[in-house]
Amino acid sequence: MVKLVAIYRQPENKEEFDRHYKEVHAPLAAKMPGLLKMEVNRVYGTPMGESDLYLIAEMYFENQETLEQGLASSEGRAAGKDLMGFAKKLVTMHFAEVV
Amino acid sequence: MVKLVAIYRQPENKEEFDRHYKEVHAPLAAKMPGLLKMEVNRVYGTPMGESDLYLIAEMYFENQETLEQGLASSEGRAAGKDLMGFAKKLVTMHFAEVV
Repeated sequence: MVKLVAIYRQPENKEEFDRHYKEVHAPLAAKMPGLLKMEVNRVYGTPMGESDLYLIAEMYFENQETLEQGLASSEGRAAGKDLMGFAKKLVTMHFAEVV
Repeated sequence: MVKLVAIYRQPENKEEFDRHYKEVHAPLAAKMPGLLKMEVNRVYGTPMGESDLYLIAEMYFENQETLEQGLASSEGRAAGKDLMGFAKKLVTMHFAEVV
């Protein structure tokens, strides 16, 4: 099992970010073929106080091949284009294997 | 459900990091009371190439209260002390709510 992990730093306008994420981006990402599960985590702090992070979204796929197929699909490209439009400066994307 | 998320950047010595993580740190973290599940993710890339991240460890608790109790327990403090000894400069810790 592998994951596509999107790590978002704190946005300037949280309300606008939340609205776009919930109403537009998450539904687009959820359409990616091969997606087994999506887990969205809202970061609310650290053991030492405030976090520089805001959201961690994890998209599970069976393996790297199906993950890449999901990203390369028309649905994956639509989600990627939307992501760059609203969160290019906030987000980093990572591939990870569940150990 | 909430998570304690530990995000590790790339260590200089991966073999030493892996050995310590697997043989010492993960078993210590797994002893925290209240821990429901631990999911360890090995980062192996990004859509654009190499990632600056190495490992993402997620420790699930029922809520923030049990998470804090887990961290404050003798087992949690032992895991925290070990973490600072081998990965202080590599790791950031975050609290997140599973949406």
